[in-house]
Parts: sequence; C-alpha cells; structure tokens
Amino acid sequence: MITTLELTEGLEGRILTDSADLVRYSSDASRAIPEGLPLAVLTARTTQDVAAGVRWAARNNIRVSVRGAGTGLAGGAVAYPQGLVISLAEMDTILSIDPGNRLAEVQAGVITADVDAAAAEYGLMYAPDPASYRQSTIGGNIATNAGGLRCVKYGVTTDSVAGLEVVLATGEIIRTGSKTRKNVVGYDLTSLFVGSEGTLGIVTGATVRLKPRPAGTAVTFRATFPSAAAAGRAVTAIINSPVVPDVLELMDRASVEIVERFHPTGLSTAGAAILVGQFISLSSEEDAAVASRICQEAGASSVEQAEGDVLLEARRVSGKALDARGLRASCDVAVPIARLAEMFEALEEISADENVAIPTFAHAGDGNLHPSVVIADESAEAYTAAERILDLITDRALSLGGTISGEHGVGSLKFGSLAKQLDPATRAAHLRIKHAFDPQGILTPGRGV
Amino acid sequence: MITTLELTEGLEGRILTDSADLVRYSSDASRAIPEGLPLAVLTARTTQDVAAGVRWAARNNIRVSVRGAGTGLAGGAVAYPQGLVISLAEMDTILSIDPGNRLAEVQAGVITADVDAAAAEYGLMYAPDPASYRQSTIGGNIATNAGGLRCVKYGVTTDSVAGLEVVLATGEIIRTGSKTRKNVVGYDLTSLFVGSEGTLGIVTGATVRLKPRPAGTAVTFRATFPSAAAAGRAVTAIINSPVVPDVLELMDRASVEIVERFHPTGLSTAGAAILVGQFISLSSEEDAAVASRICQEAGASSVEQAEGDVLLEARRVSGKALDARGLRASCDVAVPIARLAEMFEALEEISADENVAIPTFAHAGDGNLHPSVVIADESAEAYTAAERILDLITDRALSLGGTISGEHGVGSLKFGSLAKQLDPATRAAHLRIKHAFDPQGILTPGRGV
Ligand SMILES: Cc1cc2nc3c(=O)[nH]c(=O)nc-3n(C[C@H](O)[C@H](O)[C@H](O)COP(=O)(O)OP(=O)(O)OC[C@H]3O[C@@H](n4cnc5c(N)ncnc54)[C@H](O)[C@@H]3O)c2cc1C
Ligand SMILES: Cc1cc2nc3c(=O)[nH]c(=O)nc-3n(C[C@H](O)[C@H](O)[C@H](O)COP(=O)(O)OP(=O)(O)OC[C@H]3O[C@@H](n4cnc5c(N)ncnc54)[C@H](O)[C@@H]3O)c2cc1C
Repeated sequence: MITTLELTEGLEGRILTDSADLVRYSSDASRAIPEGLPLAVLTARTTQDVAAGVRWAARNNIRVSVRGAGTGLAGGAVAYPQGLVISLAEMDTILSIDPGNRLAEVQAGVITADVDAAAAEYGLMYAPDPASYRQSTIGGNIATNAGGLRCVKYGVTTDSVAGLEVVLATGEIIRTGSKTRKNVVGYDLTSLFVGSEGTLGIVTGATVRLKPRPAGTAVTFRATFPSAAAAGRAVTAIINSPVVPDVLELMDRASVEIVERFHPTGLSTAGAAILVGQFISLSSEEDAAVASRICQEAGASSVEQAEGDVLLEARRVSGKALDARGLRASCDVAVPIARLAEMFEALEEISADENVAIPTFAHAGDGNLHPSVVIADESAEAYTAAERILDLITDRALSLGGTISGEHGVGSLKFGSLAKQLDPATRAAHLRIKHAFDPQGILTPGRGV
Repeated sequence: MITTLELTEGLEGRILTDSADLVRYSSDASRAIPEGLPLAVLTARTTQDVAAGVRWAARNNIRVSVRGAGTGLAGGAVAYPQGLVISLAEMDTILSIDPGNRLAEVQAGVITADVDAAAAEYGLMYAPDPASYRQSTIGGNIATNAGGLRCVKYGVTTDSVAGLEVVLATGEIIRTGSKTRKNVVGYDLTSLFVGSEGTLGIVTGATVRLKPRPAGTAVTFRATFPSAAAAGRAVTAIINSPVVPDVLELMDRASVEIVERFHPTGLSTAGAAILVGQFISLSSEEDAAVASRICQEAGASSVEQAEGDVLLEARRVSGKALDARGLRASCDVAVPIARLAEMFEALEEISADENVAIPTFAHAGDGNLHPSVVIADESAEAYTAAERILDLITDRALSLGGTISGEHGVGSLKFGSLAKQLDPATRAAHLRIKHAFDPQGILTPGRGV
C-alpha cells in the first residue's frame, strides 16, 4: 500500500490528508463529480515543493490533479481517487512589476484581480478578466487560456503571457519565453503550455504582459433586442465596424431574470436579449454612438447609456446566479463572429423542439456563448438528459464552424467530445505531445486532450 | 544508391534534378553555404504532393529541407547534400477571403504582399509585413514567425495566424486552430508550428486573420539623434507612452550612408542615428506630435515631418543595400524595450574595442536590432572573424535579458548558440517535441532547435 509518509518528508506542514481537506480539494465549480478521494493534497509553497510532489507521484505511479482556485467549469481540477492534488493556491506572491517593460513576474497561485490591482499602481493593467477574476488564479487562467470581459479588446490570456516557469512530469523545471517583445528562439512553448489544462506540466510562475490602463471616461450602453438573433447581428456588425469595444456582453431574457432574482440591479427583462457594450477611450462617446447606431439598425427596441459598473457586475454574477438556480449544466461553445445570429437561432430551435429553457449569456464580441440547462435532480437520468441538450448545442456550434470550448477548456466533461472537433490525425498529433511530456501518464490523465 | 525514380512517379513535372535547378534551390539569402547539392527538388502543387515527397524521404531516410521564397536569413532553407528540397513556391493560391470573419485562406506559397493586396479589396489588411514582403511567402513567414514594420502595432506573424494545414514527417495531414476568435480545444498547435522553421512539419495552408486598414492619414516623422543610445531612449519612452505608432524604425548613420549609396532618397546622414515613426489614425497628427516631443526630450537634434513612403522604402531596402556592400554577416538580437539604449551603447563599445564598423538598423519599437559586419573575403578566417563579432553582440543582448533571434529564426547559423539562451532542461523540452513529431530526424534536422 502506498502511504504519504515519504511524501511528507521535506514537505512538513504542506501535506493534507484529513478527509475534510480531501473533500474540499476534490471538486471544482463544474458539475463533474469526483469518483473518490485523493490520497493527499500538497499545498505547495515553492517550485521545489511542486517538483518534489511530482517526483513522488512519478515514483509511485500516482495520478496528479493540479489545482488553482478550483473555479474551473470543465472538471479539470477534480481529484483522482487515490491520487495526489497539487494546489498552487499558496504560491500567491507578486514577485515584481517592471513598468518599463510592462511586465509582471508572479507565482501561479496569485489571484487574477490582485495582479491587475498591483499593475494599477503603475497606471497599467493585467487585461484578461474572467468573470471569476476575484477568485481564480493566474495559473488556472493560464492552464485554461481564460477569456473575460475585456478580452474582446485585449485578447485572451495567451496574448498576455510572455513566459512561464513549469515543472514537468519528470520533476524538471523549465523556463519558457522571454522578456522581449519578439523572440523566435525555439518552439513557442509558452503558448503550448497556455491552455494545456495541467496535462503537460504544472505552471509555477509566469511573466505576464501589462497594458496601459485606457485613458478617457467609460461610456456604457445597454441595447434591448426583440430576439437574440438580432442582438447577434448587431454584435457581428459592431465587431466588423471601425470601433473596438472594451466590453461587449450579451444576456438573454431568461438569464437576466435569473440574475435579477439573485442580485437585483433593476435590469429590465423586457425584450428577448440585452447587449451591454462599454467603450473606454478618448473618443468613447463617439465610439459608443457608432455602436448604438448599429444596434438600432439591427432592430434594437431601445438603446440607452447606463451605469457601467452595475451592468458589468450583473454580467459577472451570471454564473453564480445560474448555479444558485440549479443551472449547473452549461457549455462554452464559440462560433465565427459572422455566425452569431445563426447560433442564437439554433438555440431557440433546440429550446422549442426539446421544450427546455436554455438561458444563455455570452462574451458576445468574441462569439463565445454559455448556454445552460437545468439538471432536474441528482439522478443519473437527470444528468444524462441535460448532457443530451448540451450535445445538441455543441453539434450546432460545430456545424457553424465553431468550437466546443471557447474558454473553459475540455477538462473531464468534454473529453468524450474531442473527436467531434479534432480529426484522427490531428488528435494523434496532440497525443504525441502529451506522451512526449508525460509518458507515464500521471499528469491530469484522461482529460484535456 | 537512392534514385529519384520512385519519387517521380505520380509527381511528373514537379521533380527537378537538373544541376542548375539544384543550385538555384540550394541556398537562402543568408551567409550559410550549402555543403553539397540535393538529390532533387520537389516543386509541390498540392498538399498531397508534399505528403508524397515526405513519405518518399521517410522511406529512404533522406533529409528534407523546406523552402518558400528562400529569403530567409538564418540558413534554415539551405539544401542538404543528397537531400530533398520541398518547395512550396508554386502553391500560391489565395483560396478565399472571408470579410465577415476577417479571415483569409491561403496556400503556403502565396507571396506575403499578395495576401495584403487581396485583403485591401475589402478594406482589410494582412498586417505582418517583413521588409521582404514582396518576395517572401506566407509559409516562410509562418515558419519563422516573421516580424515587420507594422508589427510594433499589430503583432508578429503568430498574432495573425488562426489555423494551419500541416504535413507531418509521417506524411499525415493535420489541421490546427479554428475560425473562431477563441478556442481552447486541445493544445495550441497553431502557435507551436508558427516559428518551428520546418523542423516539425511542412505548412501547406493557413487561415490568417485580417485587420481593418487604419482610417485616417499617415503622418510620418524623422528624428535625428546625436547618439543611437539617445534614439533608443526615445523609443523606450514612445513605447511606454499612450500613443501607439504604426511604424517605429531606426537606422544608424552607417546604414543610412550605405542605403543612400544603393538607393538614394536624400536621407541626411547628419547625426548618429535616425528614427522613423509613422502614425495612421484619426488622431495621427496629435499622436505624431506626442512622439516628436518625446524625441526632442530625449535629445533629438531635429524632428521633422517627412514623406512616409520614401522613408519606409529606404528602411525596406536596408538589407539589400548592406548585402550589396558585402555586409552579409548580420544578426537579429532583441532586448527588453527598456534596455534599448544600453544595447546601442554596447554596440558602440564593441565597435570601438574591436575597431570594426557595425552598421545597425532596427525594428526599434519592438526592441529588435540587426547589426551587421563585413566579411572581408570568402576565406574561412574572414567568416570566423565576422562570427566572433556577432557572438560578442549576441552575448551582450543576452546579458540584457534579450534573445539571440527576434524574427529571423535559429536556422543553421544560430544552431550552435542555442545553449546560450536555453538551459539544458528547457532545451530538452524542445527536443521532446522534435522527437515526438520527427523521430526519424528527416525534417530540417540539426537546425532550429
Ligand atoms: C462564476 C464563474 C465565472 C467564470 N467566468 C469565466 C470567464 O469569464 N472566462 C473564463 O475563461 N472562465 C470563467 N470561469 C471558469 C474559471 O474561473 C476559469 O477556468 C479559471 O481560469 C480557472 O482558474 P482556477 O485558478 O480556479 O483553476 P482551477 O479550477 O483550479 O483549474 C482549472 C484547470 O487548470 C488546471 N490548473 C490550475 N492551475 C494550474 C497550474 N498552476 N498549472 C497547471 N495547470 C493548472 C487544472 O488542473 C484545471 O484543469 C468562471 C467560473 C466561475 C465559477
Ligand atoms: C531584404 C530582406 C529583408 C528582410 N526583412 C525581414 C523582416 O523585416 N522581418 C523578418 O522577420 N524577416 C525578414 N527577412 C527574412 C525573411 O524574409 C523571412 O525570414 C521570411 O519569413 C522568409 O520567408 P521565405 O518564404 O523566403 O522562407 P525561406 O527562406 O524559404 O525559409 C525560411 C525558413 O522557413 C522554413 N519554411 C519555409 N516555408 C515553409 C513551409 N511552408 N513550411 C514549413 N517550413 C517552411 C524553411 O525551412 C526555413 O527554415 C528579410 C530578408 C531579406 C532578404
């Protein structure tokens, strides 16, 4: 029998084996259900701790799950029965801010919003802001290539990562990337590890790129549409116009209603969907006017300026509000931006055909939608019924040239659907990489790729 | 003895074995010297042609070099003695332009400038514009992750690639990426192949991202500085200011003189260095004024508006002008943007210590410099002497936190210097990937990584 005795040596005080702790570190924010408790949790404080944990797991052939804040929605951080959980949450130091090169060095467990706040002291920002940014870790964002509200303007996590420190499945420590703006020496390992969902290595530190905080006042508008498809057409037109919004988010009526009950902000539930756009620049009034006009032309029943913070907060709590209503079965499809309206029509069709509500909110400007369905109860049938609806949605997104995951990752929940999107040769190319880095299959096996 | 007979079957008219052809396809634009002639050149017309060529090479254990336009400066496309050259130059069709999603589908052999011109018909542009853009291929740009003049604003090639079609060393054909703005399904194979210099697979097609052509008039300024270091300080300050130039290029006096002799444009050779900045936006006058003021504060002896096309053309011909003067030994270092001035001081120091001229031009806004030295004659000693100076320069760039290649790639010329930049574990991680994709070592072996 494997014991954690040997693991504890040198890692005193960092190994949790108490069952309450094991339970606490076993699940993430998704509907994925752990199949059993892990042997232990390593709450790493240093890169060396992580390497020691990985080496112990390799010697004992133990599966490792990697965990930041556990806000993931794909089941990627869920513990393996008799496995080892390596938690990065205590590696939460911002090591340096380098305003002259607009870079920050951080440990992987730093909370996303904290990096942004530290940058703000220099007039800079860390742009990618998943709705979970006050809980999620930079390491988790990197591992999932997280998107966020500001990503329509500034790009997703990968666009803000300059370099990484990674512990491989062998316990070796590597450093990728560079502090320069351009670097073509070797393969782009940084981008390879971004989005690799804990399957290739454990990110222990990162050099992230900062951007100047935009100057000018924020102008926020809310447009109400008679159909989500009309809102989708407006989004396509805004993205193809000369103005670049800082935020462009959509909520359909069902999700507005749910959010209002959870966190009342006075958002009107008239109309089938609302679009929230924000511009922050020296020309934000003019830019917002351009976008507003586009909304009117696309059939908006009303367009009005509104208090940005209130609207964005309503959008940010959508996930939690849906959760609170038992809408834990959600997906994360994305479609080419010109096909948004078609995707909304497909959702309406599925909703009508199947007679099921599909509340949807979306990082609309990025073509990324989160449709949700209720899981009626904890029975296997209820789960299966919900998954079937999500599959119908996913298939439609794929048929529009889309993807089964825009930002949450494949994790364990979408692992079975990979073959829908990747042809066999392309899938095999992924597995070549997986096997090259983790021949033993101990790092987050059976998930991600 | 291996003959090309079997290769020719099914590839009639696409196999060149004539020695004049073999010579023509054996070298690139760098100082790398082919060690012997290849067995044959495959001028592929289809993806299947490429796959057939690769399979033949694999069966016969023949080394393959991959070639676009042969404008590379790292020796990456140089033929192997008794090897096979696979040329993509005839796969030069623009398959489609999709303005609604701002995407273009192209074959790998399309000339960079042609993609941009096709996009222009829709008011769009293909942003990355290496100075060689009228000769280089998109495939070559992708394989080297090429930079260019507009990259200071729009990012380098990788930032404009949405997906790829790639023939692997096994002859398998894979498709990476997506037409969506966001996609986290599987590893970021697209970014992995971008910059992989023909060592992991052969890019046969690409989906590239287009951007709106900037509205507004171009305002170009030229600032003259008493020292290159002062110009470097101005660049750092401009990049850290709120304005974002469309172009920010530097030429020192020696390179201005050389360009003027090759392609006279009336550029003044007064001052130690000139900086050429361009802004294209609705606020270009104001933005150029901000940048001009920064130049003055950094000690510019003069700043004046100038005819953009003339200046940029002067910058674009720099490489050819240096070539014409025998300055074929050039490097491609990059430093963190805040350390540009120090890098220019280092160049001055090396030039003085070694009593050798080091004409330098730079994609300054990206911190990417091309210092050159004369190779006195064709003797081995002359090459060694030149390489020694380039090594001194490279070491200084590294000591400033820089990289040995910002855009040209490692190829064969910098292969021996890889260990200076990558620690052993990180280098080994690169080789894991190389071996996973090309266990037989037939694709551009001994180069790149
Ligand atoms: C209310 C709410 C709103 C959300 N909004 C968004 C959103 O707008 N955009 C978005 O993209 N996501 C969103 N998410 C999902 C989630 O927050 C993101 O996926 C986030 O990036 C996960 O970070 P984490 O630290 O919680 O990671 P975890 O949940 O702990 O882990 C996520 C995945 O990353 C891996 N991982 C974690 N840390 C590391 C590491 N250091 N090295 C290697 N692998 C690691 C795990 O193994 C797992 O596969 C939301 C979630 C919630 C609950
Ligand atoms: C005058 C001049 C100016 C230049 N200016 C710039 C500049 O501003 N910025 C810059 O980045 N570079 C510049 N270069 C260098 C060169 O133009 C770039 O590296 C360009 O990307 C090479 O494209 P190519 O089609 O000529 O590729 P090649 O020279 O044929 O090949 C370059 C490398 O890419 C590989 N390769 C080519 N095609 C493929 C493919 N389809 N699949 C896989 N591998 C492939 C080759 O094996 C080789 O390793 C310049 C060169 C010259 C001569």
